Amino acid sequence: MDIGLIGYGGVAKEFISLLLDKENYLEKLGFKIKVKYIIRSSGGIYVEEGINLKEIISIGDKLNYHSKFREGINIETIIKNKDVDTLVELTNTNLENGEPGLSHIKKALENKINIVTGNKGPIVLKYKELKEIAYKNNVKLLIGCTTGGALPTLNAGTYDIAGAEVLKIEGILNGTSNYILTEMYENNLNYKIALEKAIEEKIVEKNYSYDVEGYDTASKMLIISNALLDTNLTLEDIEIEGITKLTRERILEEKLKGNRPKLIGTIIKKNNKIEAKVKLEFIDKNHKLYFIDGKDKGICYYTDTLGEILIAGGASGTRNAAASVLRDIVNMGIIR
Amino acid sequence: MDIGLIGYGGVAKEFISLLLDKENYLEKLGFKIKVKYIIRSSGGIYVEEGINLKEIISIGDKLNYHSKFREGINIETIIKNKDVDTLVELTNTNLENGEPGLSHIKKALENKINIVTGNKGPIVLKYKELKEIAYKNNVKLLIGCTTGGALPTLNAGTYDIAGAEVLKIEGILNGTSNYILTEMYENNLNYKIALEKAIEEKIVEKNYSYDVEGYDTASKMLIISNALLDTNLTLEDIEIEGITKLTRERILEEKLKGNRPKLIGTIIKKNNKIEAKVKLEFIDKNHKLYFIDGKDKGICYYTDTLGEILIAGGASGTRNAAASVLRDIVNMGIIR
Repeated sequence: MDIGLIGYGGVAKEFISLLLDKENYLEKLGFKIKVKYIIRSSGGIYVEEGINLKEIISIGDKLNYHSKFREGINIETIIKNKDVDTLVELTNTNLENGEPGLSHIKKALENKINIVTGNKGPIVLKYKELKEIAYKNNVKLLIGCTTGGALPTLNAGTYDIAGAEVLKIEGILNGTSNYILTEMYENNLNYKIALEKAIEEKIVEKNYSYDVEGYDTASKMLIISNALLDTNLTLEDIEIEGITKLTRERILEEKLKGNRPKLIGTIIKKNNKIEAKVKLEFIDKNHKLYFIDGKDKGICYYTDTLGEILIAGGASGTRNAAASVLRDIVNMGIIR
Repeated sequence: MDIGLIGYGGVAKEFISLLLDKENYLEKLGFKIKVKYIIRSSGGIYVEEGINLKEIISIGDKLNYHSKFREGINIETIIKNKDVDTLVELTNTNLENGEPGLSHIKKALENKINIVTGNKGPIVLKYKELKEIAYKNNVKLLIGCTTGGALPTLNAGTYDIAGAEVLKIEGILNGTSNYILTEMYENNLNYKIALEKAIEEKIVEKNYSYDVEGYDTASKMLIISNALLDTNLTLEDIEIEGITKLTRERILEEKLKGNRPKLIGTIIKKNNKIEAKVKLEFIDKNHKLYFIDGKDKGICYYTDTLGEILIAGGASGTRNAAASVLRDIVNMGIIR
């Protein structure tokens, strides 16, 4: 399998390191993966016989000093050369207009190159359109990394419940919010203190309002719905609530009733219509997501014939996100 | 897809009913499933254009009164006619020698017919041999129903953690034992009373010693290990303990430490060797399986690069088991 990699942030670097560490393992599975391109915004490296990944790891962030680095190497080079079967798109996400990822993905698919991406922007904004381009060109668009990283949300919704119809999906998909809620609940903290603790422990990302206001959960639920239920939701279709207004008093009151606070994304089918929301809910121990605590994530599929299937866990670092990109690549070799 | 069905017990009947109920849904997915054979030990029905399933449902158990029923129709008829691509094998399980399922499966695979089965006997005894026959003949051997029914244990171990290496697998895979343990723990019952309650509530099967002595869990773990980790375990390789000797006193003592009793099947890789056991363990709330209560089942994959992935739930009736057979059939259409 010949691949190009575009975007050179944390996940991309870990992806390269994974390919190297797992070389033998992957070969045993029948995968010989050759990385021909590594491209960042200022240019890139192209080696027809495959880039020496050890060298890349050793230079770390100084990609521009690599002897083969050229400013003129970009997505157009890949399209022109037509010598990879898969493009791994990992540029920075942009939820305004999806760029530059959106153009990368479109161009690749139109030129019969499979896409594996962890870039949420283009997928939140244009999944249906991109999926149609992929379908028309008989290539794949794999997006597992965009909806929970290591947690196999889309995989489970595809293979694990195949043949069953989804009646409802509920997910705790934002580790930051869940961590804060768990801290508030367990240690009787108010929101501000719990947030500060999360910042201190580096669980919170720079732009944390995206997490705590529910938009990250909404984006992931949107993708899951559009990918699995053939909807075409936008963020405007989702009723979104965050966790910032929750008080200690409210938690205490609910705790006495046996309930825990959780930020839950819900997709529910009602008479062939889809209802989507992200809400702060208080759930009791009979709820499948009750035990998803701390930074953990989980998703529950409610089906007609297989019952309720919960998938939970999945580590949440950049290496684990990279492993979810690799998962999509391996599955690409298995699925039609 | 043209299929033959052999074995006509509860799961088989529900499978036929599912095919009928889901006809439109399956067609939308691109599946037009034609059942050409329904065979039981005393004979069977063969209709080249596809059996009218509504008729079958309406006569229920009286298959032998169907106008097309012939005593001479059996596995050999299928092999001779060579007009199905998949055989669904659902005869009664036999853990002594695997028959008659073992012969059915072997013959089908040797004649390039895919197998989907829920029959544990042949798979516990001869998975590796059967898998090799399937591989040689370029057909599939799908066995999802044998390792937890609706709970997608093998699916998850295949697609959800693709590209990651399994370090350890732990499962609570026997609903009966888990129900009894939960009753003992929650209601301070002794083993005998909890067992009686389970019998009263029809959670326990006739031959419950297989469940409570740990053999059912061991069989499932064995299959999971042989299918996913390329081992060739037999039941003798597994250290097996049941739940029958557990006392109320012991539970109380552990409860004070925050531990719950669980019958856990474990497969662990140590220096390229596999250790397999089924043990009554006391686990605390940091353990992923701590919250699997009552009739529920769950399995946790501990991996190198994706972290711990828990899959739990899945309803546990005959219809749900039938849905897991259908899941394998649908996935057969997706995977290479």
